[in-house]
Amino acid sequence: ESKKMLGGFGWGDVHHPSASETKGDYDGRWLFVNDNANNRVARIDLRDFKTKQILGPIPNISGLHGGAFVTPNTEYVLAASRFSVPLPKGTVEPIEDYATKYNGLVSGIAINPQSGEMSVGWQILMPPFNFDLGDAGKGPSEGWAFWTCYNSERATGKLEVTSTQKDRDYTAAVNWKEVEKAVKEGKTKDIGGVKVIDPKATPGLVYLVPCSKSPHGVDVSPDGKWFIGSGKLQSITTAFSVEKMLKAIQAKDFSGDEDGIPVLKYESVKEAEVNVGLGPLHTQFDNQGYAYTSLFVESAVAKWKLGSWEVADKVPIAYNIGHLVAAEGDTVNPDGKYLVALNKLSHGRHLNVGPSQPESSQLINIGGDKMKVIYDAFTEPEPHYSQMIKADKIKPIEVYPKEENKNPNAIWDIKDAKVERSGNNVTVKMVAVRSSFEPLKLEVNQGDKVTIHITNIEQTTDELHGLGLNEYNLNIVIDPGETKTITFVADKPGVFPYYCTN
Amino acid sequence: ESKKMLGGFGWGDVHHPSASETKGDYDGRWLFVNDNANNRVARIDLRDFKTKQILGPIPNISGLHGGAFVTPNTEYVLAASRFSVPLPKGTVEPIEDYATKYNGLVSGIAINPQSGEMSVGWQILMPPFNFDLGDAGKGPSEGWAFWTCYNSERATGKLEVTSTQKDRDYTAAVNWKEVEKAVKEGKTKDIGGVKVIDPKATPGLVYLVPCSKSPHGVDVSPDGKWFIGSGKLQSITTAFSVEKMLKAIQAKDFSGDEDGIPVLKYESVKEAEVNVGLGPLHTQFDNQGYAYTSLFVESAVAKWKLGSWEVADKVPIAYNIGHLVAAEGDTVNPDGKYLVALNKLSHGRHLNVGPSQPESSQLINIGGDKMKVIYDAFTEPEPHYSQMIKADKIKPIEVYPKEENKNPNAIWDIKDAKVERSGNNVTVKMVAVRSSFEPLKLEVNQGDKVTIHITNIEQTTDELHGLGLNEYNLNIVIDPGETKTITFVADKPGVFPYYCTN
Repeated sequence: ESKKMLGGFGWGDVHHPSASETKGDYDGRWLFVNDNANNRVARIDLRDFKTKQILGPIPNISGLHGGAFVTPNTEYVLAASRFSVPLPKGTVEPIEDYATKYNGLVSGIAINPQSGEMSVGWQILMPPFNFDLGDAGKGPSEGWAFWTCYNSERATGKLEVTSTQKDRDYTAAVNWKEVEKAVKEGKTKDIGGVKVIDPKATPGLVYLVPCSKSPHGVDVSPDGKWFIGSGKLQSITTAFSVEKMLKAIQAKDFSGDEDGIPVLKYESVKEAEVNVGLGPLHTQFDNQGYAYTSLFVESAVAKWKLGSWEVADKVPIAYNIGHLVAAEGDTVNPDGKYLVALNKLSHGRHLNVGPSQPESSQLINIGGDKMKVIYDAFTEPEPHYSQMIKADKIKPIEVYPKEENKNPNAIWDIKDAKVERSGNNVTVKMVAVRSSFEPLKLEVNQGDKVTIHITNIEQTTDELHGLGLNEYNLNIVIDPGETKTITFVADKPGVFPYYCTN
Repeated sequence: ESKKMLGGFGWGDVHHPSASETKGDYDGRWLFVNDNANNRVARIDLRDFKTKQILGPIPNISGLHGGAFVTPNTEYVLAASRFSVPLPKGTVEPIEDYATKYNGLVSGIAINPQSGEMSVGWQILMPPFNFDLGDAGKGPSEGWAFWTCYNSERATGKLEVTSTQKDRDYTAAVNWKEVEKAVKEGKTKDIGGVKVIDPKATPGLVYLVPCSKSPHGVDVSPDGKWFIGSGKLQSITTAFSVEKMLKAIQAKDFSGDEDGIPVLKYESVKEAEVNVGLGPLHTQFDNQGYAYTSLFVESAVAKWKLGSWEVADKVPIAYNIGHLVAAEGDTVNPDGKYLVALNKLSHGRHLNVGPSQPESSQLINIGGDKMKVIYDAFTEPEPHYSQMIKADKIKPIEVYPKEENKNPNAIWDIKDAKVERSGNNVTVKMVAVRSSFEPLKLEVNQGDKVTIHITNIEQTTDELHGLGLNEYNLNIVIDPGETKTITFVADKPGVFPYYCTN
C-alpha cells in the first residue's frame, strides 16, 4: 500500500509544510507538503500523523517549490513551478527558445473539505519565470494568492549570474476566486490533460507586482492588509499595500506587460520599505503587531512594527538563517511567544562528524521587548519551512477503533486465524497480539505465492506489532486495530524465523 | 554503489553499535553494528561517518542479535544467533525436532587491523538456545567472549510461556584465543561454506555458566575480573568471578553438559548477588568503581559498588528503561560523569502524535554521590544500545583530499567536462562546483543509457553538492573531493530540469 502511494519514487525533496486552516486559523486536520523533485503534494492526516495521499507527479508543474500553502478555508493548496519546461511535459524545445517556448505555471490543488482528498483544481500558464514561494491572502486580500518569482530575465545557464541582471523581479498576484469562475465558464485550454487558464486569452486574473530582485518569501500579514516581499540582495524588505494594489488594478495603472500579464508599478503598490538589514528572506508575525524577518547575510532576525515600519529589535543567530517560523505565525491569529530560526549552517557550533555537517535551529523567545535565543538544536540538512501549532488543536487517536476497520480480511479472534491454499497461492489470515502471532508457524512449498493479512487485535495504546521475516526483506508494522497485507514468493528454501519488530 | 552494498535489502534492524578498541579502550577508528533482520554487520568509518562495508547475510547466523561487540584490540566483532534454524541454511527440519536438529551459533567476525575489512573468522555450533547479548573479556578475562542465552528449554511456540520453565538459563563462555588455534589446526567441519567448530568434537573451548532465567546483558567490568549477568524476572543481578570460573574449569567442576558443552555450577562461579531491584537488564561502569544497572520493571537505574556489592543509589526514570550507556562505560577506562537511560516508553511525557508514540532517553549526571536526571529527549522507536565516546578521539575529515581520489573518471577542471557517445551509451564527465554543473545541459535521445561521472571539485568544508533530476527518481550527493557515478536510461521524452539538492 505504501509502495503504491509512493508511485515508484524512492526519494522526494520536501520543503514547505502547511497546516490546514478554517477561517484563516489552523484547524488541526491535515498537513500538506510539497515534493520539489517529483512535482507532488502529500497530505498527512493529523488524526494519526500518517500520509494518506500523494498527488502527482502533477501535470504541467515542474519543480514544485512554490507550495504547499493553503488558502484560508483550505479550498486550495497553492503550488507553482520553479523550473519552466516546454508544455505539455514530454515536449522538447531548444533551450535557446527558453524565453518564448518554455512556461512557468501557478496552480491551486483543490481540497475536498470533508475528506481532504486532493485533485488538480486550476492551473495558469505563466512566463518562464522561476516561482519560488507563495502565500494566500486573507481578510481584505482573501481570494488572492501571491507567489514570488526570480529570473524575470528568462535567462538560462548559470542563473546566479544570468538571472540577476534586472533591478526587479516580480510577485505574481492571482485572483483565485475569479479563476474558479473562469474555469467553470470553460475559459481554459487543455494542456497535458488539465484545463489551463492562459492569461493572454483570459485577462483580469493575474497581475505582476515588481519587487526586490531575487526574492524569496512573500508573506501576508495576519490582518491581510499587507504582503511583505524580500529580495536577498537588498538591505530592505518591502511592505506592499493590498488596498493600493486593488486601486492600481482598477485604475489600470500598468507599466507594461509580460506575455499579456499586466505589470503594476512598484511605487503605486509599495507602502513602505523597512530597513531590516542585509539579505532579508522570509517574514513571520506575532500577536502584538510585529513582523519578524530572517536576514540570511547578516545572520540575524529583525523584529519590526507593522504600520510604523520601524525596526524594534534584532537578534543574532548562528548562522545563515533561511526560513523562520513563529507560533501560528502565518495565520490570522498568531500566538507570539516563540519563534524558531531555521539556520542553513551551524559552522563552529557542532562537533565534526565528517563531510556532511549538521545544520541548526534556534528557539527564540519573542514574548518580551527584546528577543532572546533560549535553545539550540542540531538538525539534518537542510531545514526549509516549518509549522508551529498549538498542541490542543491536535487530538490524534492512539488506537484504531475496531468498528472502523472495514478490511474484509480482518479477523479479531485467534480461532479465526487460518491458512488456505489454492494451487500455488497460500492465503493467511493472521492475528498479532501481545507476544504472539497466530498461526505461529507457516509451512509452504518453495515457489508458493504467500499473502498474509495480519490484524493487530489490540485495543490499548502503544501496542504496535511488527512482523519481520529473517533474510526475506519483509517487514510490516501494524498499529492497534489495523489490518495490513504483505505478499511474497517463497523462493528461498529453508526455515526462516519471523519476529515482532516493534 | 550504495545499492550494491545494501545487497538488495530494503531494511535492517540495527541494535548494538560497538566502537573499535585498542587495548580495551575506544580508538575512534570504526563503529560496527548488527542487523538482526538480515544477519549482517556493518562497518562505519569514523573518519567520515559513512558505512564502508556490510558483511552478510552471514552464513549459519540466524537473527544476528548477539552483536556487535568488539574484542579488546578489535581482533573480532562478536556475533551470535538469536533464532536457531537447521544448518546449513536452506535445510528444512520439522519444528517438532527443534531440540535436536536446530542449532544456535556464536561467531567472531575477523577485522583486518589496517583496513577494518570484515570477514567470517570463526563459528561455533551451539545448542538451539536463543543467544541475546554478549561482551568480550579484558585484563584477566582477555581472550574470553561471553554471551547470554535464554530458552535453554529448547522450546518452540509462545516463548514467553514455554521458555521460562526452568529456573536458570546460561551465559556461554568461549575461549576465543583457543578457538583461533583450533581453527588453524583444522579442527572444524564445513557448514554452509564456513569452517565451524563443533564443541562435541573439539572440547575445551566453550562452557556454560548458569545464570538468572531470561537474561539480557552480560557485561564485563573494566578490570575484567567480573562479568555481570541479569535476568529480567529477578530482583538481583549476579556478579560472576572470572577467577572462580577458570578454577572451576580447571577442576572440571561441572554439573553436566548440553550437547557436549560442560555446564559449570552457579554457586562455583558466582561471586555475589546484588539486590539491585526489579527487572535488571544491562550494566555499565564508571571510573569510581561503580556499576549502573537498568531496571526495566522498576523503571530506575541502580548504582552499586563493585567488590562490596552494595547498592549506593537509585534514580527513577520515565520509563521502562531497556539499555543504558555510560561515557566509555564498556571499556577498560570509563569516563564517568554521564549516563544515558534508553527508555522503551515515554508514556504521559510526550504530546500525542498518533498510534506510533515516541520513546525517550534521559541524560543522567553520575558525577556526584546522587544520580540526577538532567535532560530528556524523545527518540524514535526503539532505542537499543548506544556508544558514548570522547569527542577528541574522533577527528573526521570534512573534505576528501584531491590526491586521495583515485577514481579514473574524476576530472578537476571545467575544461575537462565532456559528453561522449558510443552507440546508445552516453558517458558524461561532469564537474560540480558552487552554483553550477558543467556541462550545464545534456541532450540525449530517448532510450539512451546515460552514465554520469560527477566530481565535486570543491576543497572547502560544507560545500556538498547534490544532483537531482526532476521526475526521474535520481538523486546523488557528492561531498567535496568525491567522484560518484549514476546511470539511467532516458526512457521518458521531454525536458527535465536538474538541480543541486544540497
